[in-house]
Amino acid sequence: MPKLILVRHGQSQWNLENRFTGWWDVDLTERGVEEAMAAGALMKDKGVEPTRAFTSFQTRAIRTLHLALHQCNRLWIPETKDWRLNERHYGGLTGLDKQETREKHGDEQVHIWRRSFDVPPPEMEAGSKYDLSSDPRYAGIDIPTTESLKLTIERVLPYWESDILPVLASGETVIISAHGNSLRALVKHLSQISDDDITGLEIPTGQPIIYDFDDGMRPGERYYLKDS
Amino acid sequence: MPKLILVRHGQSQWNLENRFTGWWDVDLTERGVEEAMAAGALMKDKGVEPTRAFTSFQTRAIRTLHLALHQCNRLWIPETKDWRLNERHYGGLTGLDKQETREKHGDEQVHIWRRSFDVPPPEMEAGSKYDLSSDPRYAGIDIPTTESLKLTIERVLPYWESDILPVLASGETVIISAHGNSLRALVKHLSQISDDDITGLEIPTGQPIIYDFDDGMRPGERYYLKDS
Repeated sequence: MPKLILVRHGQSQWNLENRFTGWWDVDLTERGVEEAMAAGALMKDKGVEPTRAFTSFQTRAIRTLHLALHQCNRLWIPETKDWRLNERHYGGLTGLDKQETREKHGDEQVHIWRRSFDVPPPEMEAGSKYDLSSDPRYAGIDIPTTESLKLTIERVLPYWESDILPVLASGETVIISAHGNSLRALVKHLSQISDDDITGLEIPTGQPIIYDFDDGMRPGERYYLKDS
Repeated sequence: MPKLILVRHGQSQWNLENRFTGWWDVDLTERGVEEAMAAGALMKDKGVEPTRAFTSFQTRAIRTLHLALHQCNRLWIPETKDWRLNERHYGGLTGLDKQETREKHGDEQVHIWRRSFDVPPPEMEAGSKYDLSSDPRYAGIDIPTTESLKLTIERVLPYWESDILPVLASGETVIISAHGNSLRALVKHLSQISDDDITGLEIPTGQPIIYDFDDGMRPGERYYLKDS
């Protein structure tokens, strides 16, 4: 039966520094590397063997995938990368730490941006040092200038429907290594979580989440692999 | 202009132990990891930026690719894995060290197997502990029981023609991370090396080899990236 494994990348340098990261390509910390390896060791231990992999264009998610697959002897499976699995784009907040953001914009506004479903942060300014328009990985892609969670969902779900779901429906065990908000988009859809509730749902780093699908491609209850 | 980068995987545990490896999935040593990272650092230093990657189904080549791409910030490029880039299958010699092989088969015979173009080693016996017929990565693939270099070439070159050359011809910078003999197959073809000479050509580990192609997709002289 089709099985879906969701893994949020291990700790990144800016997770550690408490800075808004979004599309900026920050690498894993040593702890993040260990989290990714532990996710793979857990899959091996539980006998969960992915046969197809999807990930974003961002180093922290790609490395998490590779480190996990190496631990469970599955580096050889086909792997597809797509920008639509990227983290939510934090616009003008990119690079700011949470304290700087509060000082600049006020506690209440920051709370709204972090926790509202459909209010995007301010747009990234042209010429920002975090502008990715000259990054070759995004050539030909209409890079967002900012995204709410709602906008993130609006590019994750069409990709899920067009590229991932058909693979899953063919009976594969699919692993998706991605980001807090691109995974929230999938969990919201699969577990039918409301707009209000999804913004408060934390996806832990390096902790595989499983959905088993039935014959009609209906997802069962999600669970952590460690608890199975 | 199209550019081809060939990288032989870094040192594996059985390279170190001087054992015939072939299709057995032996991992990199710590030195092999360092060689792979150095290959990527050299690409970054020289401004050679791969846009498409091909590798085998074998962990040592896949990890070499990933470690090199990480060093030059190119983990995000599309990557294709195929068994036809695997190492030559050493049949019944798989797992033996060179001393054991000489004792079992005699110096002269071993020399013939290692250096002849078209004499394959004895076939792998059914039930060998190195039999891969139940390995899921080779499901649906007619696994060889042994291969000469000639037989290796006969599965590498059709894949080159059908899958890699068209990508290269579209103007991409293609990196192939593979093995001593699958890379010999490509170098023999591209540099027009005779059957007699190719068996003596050593491909060093972790040392990027470059071919630049002209408008008519004719390859120039091959060179080591370190010397450019």
